[in-house]
Amino acid sequence: MKALIVDGEGRLSVEEISMPQIGPCQALVKMESCGVCNGTDMKLIHRTFKNFHTYPAILGHEGVGKVVKTGEFVENLHVGDRVLLPFLEEAADGYVPGWGAYAEYCVVGDEKSAVRHGMGPGTKQWNEAYAAQTVIRPEDRVDAVGASMIITFREVLSAIRRFGFQPNETAVIFGAGPVGLCFTRFLKLLGLKTVVTTDILEEKVETARRMGADYAFHSASCNVAEEVKRIFPDGVDYVVDAVGVNALINEAMGLLKYNGKICCYGISPELTMKLDWSSAPYNWTLQFVQWPSKKEEGEAHSQIMAWINQGVLDPMDFISDVIPFERITDAFELIEAKKPDTKKIVVRF
Amino acid sequence: MKALIVDGEGRLSVEEISMPQIGPCQALVKMESCGVCNGTDMKLIHRTFKNFHTYPAILGHEGVGKVVKTGEFVENLHVGDRVLLPFLEEAADGYVPGWGAYAEYCVVGDEKSAVRHGMGPGTKQWNEAYAAQTVIRPEDRVDAVGASMIITFREVLSAIRRFGFQPNETAVIFGAGPVGLCFTRFLKLLGLKTVVTTDILEEKVETARRMGADYAFHSASCNVAEEVKRIFPDGVDYVVDAVGVNALINEAMGLLKYNGKICCYGISPELTMKLDWSSAPYNWTLQFVQWPSKKEEGEAHSQIMAWINQGVLDPMDFISDVIPFERITDAFELIEAKKPDTKKIVVRF
Amino acid sequence: MKALIVDGEGRLSVEEISMPQIGPCQALVKMESCGVCNGTDMKLIHRTFKNFHTYPAILGHEGVGKVVKTGEFVENLHVGDRVLLPFLEEAADGYVPGWGAYAEYCVVGDEKSAVRHGMGPGTKQWNEAYAAQTVIRPEDRVDAVGASMIITFREVLSAIRRFGFQPNETAVIFGAGPVGLCFTRFLKLLGLKTVVTTDILEEKVETARRMGADYAFHSASCNVAEEVKRIFPDGVDYVVDAVGVNALINEAMGLLKYNGKICCYGISPELTMKLDWSSAPYNWTLQFVQWPSKKEEGEAHSQIMAWINQGVLDPMDFISDVIPFERITDAFELIEAKKPDTKKIVVRF
Amino acid sequence: MKALIVDGEGRLSVEEISMPQIGPCQALVKMESCGVCNGTDMKLIHRTFKNFHTYPAILGHEGVGKVVKTGEFVENLHVGDRVLLPFLEEAADGYVPGWGAYAEYCVVGDEKSAVRHGMGPGTKQWNEAYAAQTVIRPEDRVDAVGASMIITFREVLSAIRRFGFQPNETAVIFGAGPVGLCFTRFLKLLGLKTVVTTDILEEKVETARRMGADYAFHSASCNVAEEVKRIFPDGVDYVVDAVGVNALINEAMGLLKYNGKICCYGISPELTMKLDWSSAPYNWTLQFVQWPSKKEEGEAHSQIMAWINQGVLDPMDFISDVIPFERITDAFELIEAKKPDTKKIVVRF
Repeated sequence: MKALIVDGEGRLSVEEISMPQIGPCQALVKMESCGVCNGTDMKLIHRTFKNFHTYPAILGHEGVGKVVKTGEFVENLHVGDRVLLPFLEEAADGYVPGWGAYAEYCVVGDEKSAVRHGMGPGTKQWNEAYAAQTVIRPEDRVDAVGASMIITFREVLSAIRRFGFQPNETAVIFGAGPVGLCFTRFLKLLGLKTVVTTDILEEKVETARRMGADYAFHSASCNVAEEVKRIFPDGVDYVVDAVGVNALINEAMGLLKYNGKICCYGISPELTMKLDWSSAPYNWTLQFVQWPSKKEEGEAHSQIMAWINQGVLDPMDFISDVIPFERITDAFELIEAKKPDTKKIVVRF
Repeated sequence: MKALIVDGEGRLSVEEISMPQIGPCQALVKMESCGVCNGTDMKLIHRTFKNFHTYPAILGHEGVGKVVKTGEFVENLHVGDRVLLPFLEEAADGYVPGWGAYAEYCVVGDEKSAVRHGMGPGTKQWNEAYAAQTVIRPEDRVDAVGASMIITFREVLSAIRRFGFQPNETAVIFGAGPVGLCFTRFLKLLGLKTVVTTDILEEKVETARRMGADYAFHSASCNVAEEVKRIFPDGVDYVVDAVGVNALINEAMGLLKYNGKICCYGISPELTMKLDWSSAPYNWTLQFVQWPSKKEEGEAHSQIMAWINQGVLDPMDFISDVIPFERITDAFELIEAKKPDTKKIVVRF
Repeated sequence: MKALIVDGEGRLSVEEISMPQIGPCQALVKMESCGVCNGTDMKLIHRTFKNFHTYPAILGHEGVGKVVKTGEFVENLHVGDRVLLPFLEEAADGYVPGWGAYAEYCVVGDEKSAVRHGMGPGTKQWNEAYAAQTVIRPEDRVDAVGASMIITFREVLSAIRRFGFQPNETAVIFGAGPVGLCFTRFLKLLGLKTVVTTDILEEKVETARRMGADYAFHSASCNVAEEVKRIFPDGVDYVVDAVGVNALINEAMGLLKYNGKICCYGISPELTMKLDWSSAPYNWTLQFVQWPSKKEEGEAHSQIMAWINQGVLDPMDFISDVIPFERITDAFELIEAKKPDTKKIVVRF
Repeated sequence: MKALIVDGEGRLSVEEISMPQIGPCQALVKMESCGVCNGTDMKLIHRTFKNFHTYPAILGHEGVGKVVKTGEFVENLHVGDRVLLPFLEEAADGYVPGWGAYAEYCVVGDEKSAVRHGMGPGTKQWNEAYAAQTVIRPEDRVDAVGASMIITFREVLSAIRRFGFQPNETAVIFGAGPVGLCFTRFLKLLGLKTVVTTDILEEKVETARRMGADYAFHSASCNVAEEVKRIFPDGVDYVVDAVGVNALINEAMGLLKYNGKICCYGISPELTMKLDWSSAPYNWTLQFVQWPSKKEEGEAHSQIMAWINQGVLDPMDFISDVIPFERITDAFELIEAKKPDTKKIVVRF
């Protein structure tokens, strides 16, 4: 089968690799779509992903596919089921998964069967991804392309829960890319009192406003700190870095309320910075959530699907481009081009 | 001014009463609309409202009006503001407020000014309603009739928070009247995994399904307990009594999961029952929430308005009849008629 | 080996039964002590234990013993370890476990090894008790008799956590038997503002005071409701039934604060009552916690041992009698005698 | 009256200043004792206290005194009451309070009376300290010297609650001074599974062990990071900086579990540092709690007094020196001397 490979020098190519084997509690999945992640995928390409050093690697981790074959103990997955988050669990022909969803076939696990047959958490057969490899039901109002966006939705919602946002609180979000827009939309749906979103591109500022931001500022043409201080003289409860630029952390400090929190979701390639908390309140928190737990992603599924099925959240609002797998390297060029109207790019098989 | 009075025998009449006076932190409000509450209003009429014994009383407590005059210390209310939950705070001409929103003029307080001027919580000038007398902003997408429904929305949402529902949990709701429909809709928006709603009227069952219930059962034509046990062999996390029929408590017992909870929101006129927990799990809870805290209602406002302003929640979906104040007694006859297509009735001034 | 049997008519006798077998993740334990539970043990004897109908049964569930043999996969249990909560998992010679700790040998499981070897939660080999079969370390300041009391301590503490008591709240506890005393002592250690304990026996009232009760009332000689209302004119946050007398639930109602909770820990043999909430506030909760989760008991271990090891909690304060296994039926006669100075009775092997 | 003054050059002197006046909801207090704080007091002397720039200043903020006169509306304070945390609220003779408890007379407020008389939170008469100016009751087992330690106890406990420590979690505490010892003792009393305390002085390491630390390391003679990793191969839930040395933050990073937290309670004079999270897990939190809320300190009182009154916590274990007010400057020399056996120093009037 074909798969997208990155070598140790950042070169992308589609190569022929062996099909994955499935165990008794697993299913084989023919891939339908996979989102491009401008965090993880790009960092793997540029060799800046913390603690990842094995190349050549098979990219992709926001995939959706259909079950084509099931192992002997599988009970909760059926041929024809559309399922989220298939991965390659093992290296093939010297290519290591990172995490392999840009391949024609991947693998999912049947969580409940694995548990019942003694292959659950704590055993060597278990893979924590099983907890998030959820089936999209026929009645769910989403297609294969839209479904790949659910993976980002769940990551962001599970991070929101971990950061601890509560109704009636206030937030400033730095960045209105796909992740920043998810924060904007979700925080309003969750009942925050006021959400302010900023971006350096005017188009994205407009989109943030449409997504529900109470205020949206164009950081290239106004002084965001002044605007925020005018609206919130005592500061805000949360500042979210949805971009991954360390310098924003120091900038955020002065916007915080007593006991406020800076939430780092965006991943910066640097791992150090000069922290300056002279403008911070006496009590404040800096929280990094850069590795969503698969269990928590799975637990975010019901909320996301309730929003989608009730017409509250439309995955297509977050997707700007759908590119066939045959032209997958174009998708990465598009990301690098950083065009103002690029939102999420989805690869379709 | 005119006001709707109930005497001690349950007779309704519109009488002329004196206009309310306002204090320095209060504003006078000309009423625009007021919802009919088939819980409290009906119980006051029938003399079954626990601990309420003073008649003749001025009915109404789900009102909306416009500020026409402000006290000298008022800073956060302006003439022309539309405001929720005006009340009559004092008896007039021998009529006691219960809570008086079916009068042409009522009173609201400016919470922040009251606090700043030493008339806040703990002082004798304070009224806890000030915490819920919120201004509807011009940009909020709701008119005077729809706004009266916000009061029910906030009561139900604050009760939901107090009951402690969490994402991924499961619930059965007995009753698909306005309150049962609010529970159904809100619990899905809040990410519960599965919500089942039941009613004895087929029309209401259909509405519940449209509002987002995963399953909706017509209790007159099927065995609800059997249906629920088929879907949830281990029981559900919550059973909500949105009707106020004590017998449902014993029926709910057998549907509960280990550590499940029965939530009594509907108010029964009786205050005793034979409790039989032989079919309950060893651990279970029975919680009565029948008096929403005004503070908590005020805190529910942001979430409700975020849903309304983003098009997720439409007050008009819950309102079946709008009746002019001149024909207000018709509204109560309509309630007593218990017609299958009656939802919330709103009186318009 | 010898074991205490109750037949279907409530007759006790010590019989010879077969030794238990152990699986690869289990250990064989020679029993050292076992507490007498005047809830569960007595209900099994009197055939009033909800849902338990299989006799003859092997009694005992508060045991402590020493590991004498380990299965091949066991890693975290060693011969000589003192361990809490051994059980008989299987029927022997027609005697069913209920739960069998009054036998000379019982079984425990190695939780971590079971998980690692695919016999964890969700598999048929798993027993939820493994999560609470904790090892008493050599440095822990408790002997075999005292250790049996830890089982009650953990049950009560895990119930306290489930009921949700918080620092600065207030509580009234009905009953100063071993369980009521645990509630009294623990709630003060956990920072409740005021704890009031009542009992019908003067001796127990005194003990409650020594254990830390801010007030202790002798219910036979004073009007508890009046006393409580004098101290707390607005009522208390919690009333705990540590006795199992349904009538107390109605009595408790009038003592509750707005949003207060009645906590039923004591188990009544009846499963019905006439509930009368006319004296309750509008908002209140009735919570039954009568089946502690083994997982939660295991999670309560650290807190209990920290208190014991720092000299804050002495198991011997709760134990009045230690009786050798040879005279075990005397222990049950002592329970039935209901003498005022009887606290916990422990059987020693 | 006499008071301890620091001028803008760090010189200390006792000066004569005017007696404070009391308002209708306040009481005049004759001081009995005051603890020396090696955080705040020393920073005020060295001009490194963030945002404090007004000199000459009257030092002291851990005081205890007796009520000698009450204002006309005072109801909950009586002449003779021992009360915590009196302050000078206003400048006197050009000396500004910082916070003035090293003066012969100070002021407290009657929180409830202030609220009832319209001088509560939000009014200009209110002082947030009223929420923490608690009366020590005659039955409380503590004298005037011990009582001053309660102020530190409550500050630390309220910080512990804000940091969010939970039973069964694990913690490493850097520093075994008075604050580090409070963390050690309280975290064990609160049921943490394992607490490790480190210090560079051998005497303090011993004390930490006696206070309940499961492990205590002498950082000058062993590699703390290695020792911690040996005990907790996956890291710990919390690392507490109880010292105020920024470099410890980077050191702590490598000890954290996935989702672990670094708690900064110690106050460093610097407000910048080079943060290096290369050794941190993907998800982690850095929380600064350096300004305890008076309301939260007041709410910590019940828990602290329950521990003291039940013999679980002895203030004298934390106090090494009691120095008369006449020799108050000696107290500060003793702090600067940094002797290994110095714990808390209390000044007695």
